[in-house]
Amino acid sequence: MLEELKKKVYEANMLLPKYGLVLFTWGNVSAIDREKGLFVIKPSGVEYDKMTPDDMVVMDLDGNKVEGKLSPSSDTPTHLELYKAFEEIGGVVHTHSSYATSWAQAGRGIPCYGTTHADYFYGEIPCVRALTKEEIEADYEKNTGIAIAEEFKRLGIDPMAVPGVLCQNHGVFTWGKDAANAVHNAAVEEEVAKMAFRSEILNPKIDVISSDLQDKHYFRKHGANAYYGQKTEE
Amino acid sequence: MLEELKKKVYEANMLLPKYGLVLFTWGNVSAIDREKGLFVIKPSGVEYDKMTPDDMVVMDLDGNKVEGKLSPSSDTPTHLELYKAFEEIGGVVHTHSSYATSWAQAGRGIPCYGTTHADYFYGEIPCVRALTKEEIEADYEKNTGIAIAEEFKRLGIDPMAVPGVLCQNHGVFTWGKDAANAVHNAAVEEEVAKMAFRSEILNPKIDVISSDLQDKHYFRKHGANAYYGQKTEE
Amino acid sequence: MLEELKKKVYEANMLLPKYGLVLFTWGNVSAIDREKGLFVIKPSGVEYDKMTPDDMVVMDLDGNKVEGKLSPSSDTPTHLELYKAFEEIGGVVHTHSSYATSWAQAGRGIPCYGTTHADYFYGEIPCVRALTKEEIEADYEKNTGIAIAEEFKRLGIDPMAVPGVLCQNHGVFTWGKDAANAVHNAAVEEEVAKMAFRSEILNPKIDVISSDLQDKHYFRKHGANAYYGQKTEE
Amino acid sequence: MLEELKKKVYEANMLLPKYGLVLFTWGNVSAIDREKGLFVIKPSGVEYDKMTPDDMVVMDLDGNKVEGKLSPSSDTPTHLELYKAFEEIGGVVHTHSSYATSWAQAGRGIPCYGTTHADYFYGEIPCVRALTKEEIEADYEKNTGIAIAEEFKRLGIDPMAVPGVLCQNHGVFTWGKDAANAVHNAAVEEEVAKMAFRSEILNPKIDVISSDLQDKHYFRKHGANAYYGQKTEE
Repeated sequence: MLEELKKKVYEANMLLPKYGLVLFTWGNVSAIDREKGLFVIKPSGVEYDKMTPDDMVVMDLDGNKVEGKLSPSSDTPTHLELYKAFEEIGGVVHTHSSYATSWAQAGRGIPCYGTTHADYFYGEIPCVRALTKEEIEADYEKNTGIAIAEEFKRLGIDPMAVPGVLCQNHGVFTWGKDAANAVHNAAVEEEVAKMAFRSEILNPKIDVISSDLQDKHYFRKHGANAYYGQKTEE
Repeated sequence: MLEELKKKVYEANMLLPKYGLVLFTWGNVSAIDREKGLFVIKPSGVEYDKMTPDDMVVMDLDGNKVEGKLSPSSDTPTHLELYKAFEEIGGVVHTHSSYATSWAQAGRGIPCYGTTHADYFYGEIPCVRALTKEEIEADYEKNTGIAIAEEFKRLGIDPMAVPGVLCQNHGVFTWGKDAANAVHNAAVEEEVAKMAFRSEILNPKIDVISSDLQDKHYFRKHGANAYYGQKTEE
Repeated sequence: MLEELKKKVYEANMLLPKYGLVLFTWGNVSAIDREKGLFVIKPSGVEYDKMTPDDMVVMDLDGNKVEGKLSPSSDTPTHLELYKAFEEIGGVVHTHSSYATSWAQAGRGIPCYGTTHADYFYGEIPCVRALTKEEIEADYEKNTGIAIAEEFKRLGIDPMAVPGVLCQNHGVFTWGKDAANAVHNAAVEEEVAKMAFRSEILNPKIDVISSDLQDKHYFRKHGANAYYGQKTEE
Repeated sequence: MLEELKKKVYEANMLLPKYGLVLFTWGNVSAIDREKGLFVIKPSGVEYDKMTPDDMVVMDLDGNKVEGKLSPSSDTPTHLELYKAFEEIGGVVHTHSSYATSWAQAGRGIPCYGTTHADYFYGEIPCVRALTKEEIEADYEKNTGIAIAEEFKRLGIDPMAVPGVLCQNHGVFTWGKDAANAVHNAAVEEEVAKMAFRSEILNPKIDVISSDLQDKHYFRKHGANAYYGQKTEE
């Protein structure tokens, strides 16, 4: 069942340690088959070097396990809410990557200080508010997803233009057109978190980049007038 | 004698360089057989790539060497005191891991700024006071262990809920249910030390996480209602 | 066509991930054949581990593609302007290397705080001003190259004595006698960016090195009286 | 001639990239045969992966090349002065290792903030003053060595108790009983530079460790009452 998608989700999960985005089992990747209304996700707490494509768990959008011998990631309800709220996304990633999580712990979004950021994220990567006591105690992971979706709605941000977020005191969620693209965005978010950290130390009066430069770089890579990369590539 | 335990202690020691927690021979792991009242520990000053399971040293809880051709780690008396004071622990680790030791040198415990920390340590990782001249000059390593145990008693902390500590101006001790688990906690302590360092720079007014979030994350992984990981795993 | 140069440009591009100067495809190297008036550059958005020497693109100095099945790097017009303005250079590199780009995002040049810097760069590595809205919207990459050349002219800097620059809010360009040398300078610029970042934190009243020490180290490696290295080496 | 020593010096040089202490050719190791009054040093500007034991250069203590087809390291006169001034040392290392050089650029010695430092260096690692214009222009490398020796004499420091130094605006020299031991000390100096950098940020009111703790740790590893390591080891 969904063998091709399981393989892709497995491979995308294996990119997390390759890119240095996880310690131990602190991350998970999923991807959705929109037609079937099913998504595939990493099992909970399984070590990366022991995992196989067959260990991936198939879930429906009501949160029921449809196939798989293992329990799904404990963050599964967050992935589910993101798939429901953001209809264009095909893959979701959760990590505690080191620099981005440092910003989340500080309760701050990552400002756009350069074109590395602007190439992938159209403006600040927001930091979603801490959950309330009630949200934490009942359906914590589900409420995490709802809070992310509400924050994007409140700020009027297109989730495809800002394909990632920080959750205060917690960590990182990113997404993309598929599992591999979501992991790519997780690696970019970590790198821009790293550079923004240092840039603020080097210049306490630093300002975000101009909207002209933001537009130029973002639309150089995205949309009808994009001219970065090869036209024949996917 | 204790061949299985020696192998596990050897393997746990070899994880220290693998996880980047030691330079040269600056670390050691031990594990205890509670029934026999004996513990196995790394020899002193032997390089990791020359070490074998047979080099491990067997000690009793009076500090006598029971088996082994080499001298035990000079930190052996600290391990011994921890085994005596913390009856539930099965393994102990000592490192000078780079970020955690930076906190120890600063004389500060590591505050809980996020769920990465909360998943493993229930609250701040304390920094034990500097020893007195008398404590340093006579039985320094033993007094290090006694001071750790006293600090946990004074603060009313369950050592299984906060499985690690800093020793002022010195380094890190962690523990766990066995040798491998103690090393796991040493890697987590280093990672949370790293992120807390950056989070304070990013937000000088940072506050520790709420007790609600602390409880949620800790009890998601520990105790009767844990739901992280696979039920069939150890 | 230019097979030898393509191979050298390919090999120089492969040094970027080897030296840790790029994430994904965020960098490119070119080299010029001055006699033929042609330069060879990396294709746009192709992953390093899939690239071959045959993928390199040959361009003329009017910006026309002369050979190659792929599109050239989107930064090609910047390379071209640098070849036109700096007649002695044989290779150009663009990266978003992590520390140097942090300085660019802060809008600051890298001051010369030590002999590591002085050995390769005669004085501060300048940070070129942000482009205007007009410069960004029309011919952005070409205007980036023009702004670099104008800044060097304005400051009266010999581009062979300061073989690199920062572009505000963007990243790094370096150059050299050939592609490999330009990559070498990119690695040095990243390392001095890293050390200068820390030195300022360690001493907020830090000053740049004396002109005597600058001269000694620079001319120890460059010019008629150089005595570093082997006389028989290239 | 001195084949055994050449091999040891070669192997010690190869440890510099292994321990991450050098970029490119920015470091060199030498060792002395006190009976013959000759020392062996790395050639100048040769890449580590192309170097062989036969490339090592033999020098006498008057600075004459006694054997070797290549030119010796340009830092040779500094090594020579250190061998003349510090009679107990058997090996010398020069690096621009990243954190230690950041302190040198800041013009600051590395204070002893913990036992990692105290285990190897008895007190602060001093930063030698910048040289004068005259000292730089004539016999720069020789004067670097003389300034180091004078500073140790002025401060009354035993070079075997503090086996390393920083040179302001420049980099690191360390030494030891032989080439391998000098490299070991270079790795330790880099690690303590790294931790001291962070400890100061974590606690701006940080103080150096007590003399009691300094004594305990230093003499645990050195001198007649040392008890770290195996008695049978070299």
